[in-house]
Amino acid sequence: MPKKVDHQERRTLIADALMRVAADQGLEAVSLRHVAAEAGVSAGMVQHYFRTKDEMMAFAMAVVRERGQIRVTEALARLGENPAPRLLLRTMIAALLPLDDRTRDDGRVALAFLAYTAVRPASATGLRADTMQLTSFIASVLPTGDAAEAAGLLALMEGLGLYLLGGQYTAEQALDALDAQLDLLFGSSAAA
Amino acid sequence: MPKKVDHQERRTLIADALMRVAADQGLEAVSLRHVAAEAGVSAGMVQHYFRTKDEMMAFAMAVVRERGQIRVTEALARLGENPAPRLLLRTMIAALLPLDDRTRDDGRVALAFLAYTAVRPASATGLRADTMQLTSFIASVLPTGDAAEAAGLLALMEGLGLYLLGGQYTAEQALDALDAQLDLLFGSSAAA
Repeated sequence: MPKKVDHQERRTLIADALMRVAADQGLEAVSLRHVAAEAGVSAGMVQHYFRTKDEMMAFAMAVVRERGQIRVTEALARLGENPAPRLLLRTMIAALLPLDDRTRDDGRVALAFLAYTAVRPASATGLRADTMQLTSFIASVLPTGDAAEAAGLLALMEGLGLYLLGGQYTAEQALDALDAQLDLLFGSSAAA
Repeated sequence: MPKKVDHQERRTLIADALMRVAADQGLEAVSLRHVAAEAGVSAGMVQHYFRTKDEMMAFAMAVVRERGQIRVTEALARLGENPAPRLLLRTMIAALLPLDDRTRDDGRVALAFLAYTAVRPASATGLRADTMQLTSFIASVLPTGDAAEAAGLLALMEGLGLYLLGGQYTAEQALDALDAQLDLLFGSSAAA
């Protein structure tokens, strides 16, 4: 009896190869040919699961977003019930920053995706929804509830991520900048 | 008498083509072949001026940085002598944000360069020096003189740039977030 192909397993194999190529060699290396070579399958097989580069990039970004959400959920769970708003925000943002090797790989994929979508605005629709949702949540936790302050904190997080990936800031400098910002937003006396 | 080749002129012609390709089609399109086609010259001619993709990317980023510096210098000159620190910072940061078509093109080139250097850290040395210089300058202008607050403001600027390019924030939202941040840093009563 011929072995039944496990489509989910094969898709995951190809997806993992795609993520390694994107993180190691950057955006330009993400092609049917490179991903196939990394996964050890044919280009035709890759094309069966991802028809275009757009689909591959969108999938890689979806994986990065999902991993980020899982990291945030796990980090918040460790805080127990009803954490202070400042600690909640610090924990959430630190979980999203590229502070170790694994999150740096994810960060490089996200950066490649952003550079890719900057010249193809239609492909960034999901990102815009994410940003709006995060901004509303942050505003709901800030003492002032101010939307512009929330938008600024989210932008600061993105900028810290960029500087961590580029090596302009160390992990310590990035966390110091985050704490200084939380001091400004919550008042330094309420330091968590 | 044969016409003498104007090397500076030809280099500028090729550089302009390179910038158009990078801004319109993104990082992957920056190749000897694409740039040659855009400039209307041979690939060999492009290679005479830029031997590798690394050289092309570094040159494009240098052009973007220089244009940014010129915009800042011009914007600050319009403020006259001894502007208030808050107004100085707002003017400098607004001049660096991708708020119109031309600066958006530059921003897309910068983003492509960042994604490119994220997997080739050695090529980002110039960026790190820039960041340190800007952080020191910002700290010297802030009421507290605090390095972490300065690092945060610079990160916020980068994040706003990223969200402007991705369409997550409108120009108005980005400037509101910047003003809210300056309120936090300078006190809202001292609004410029």
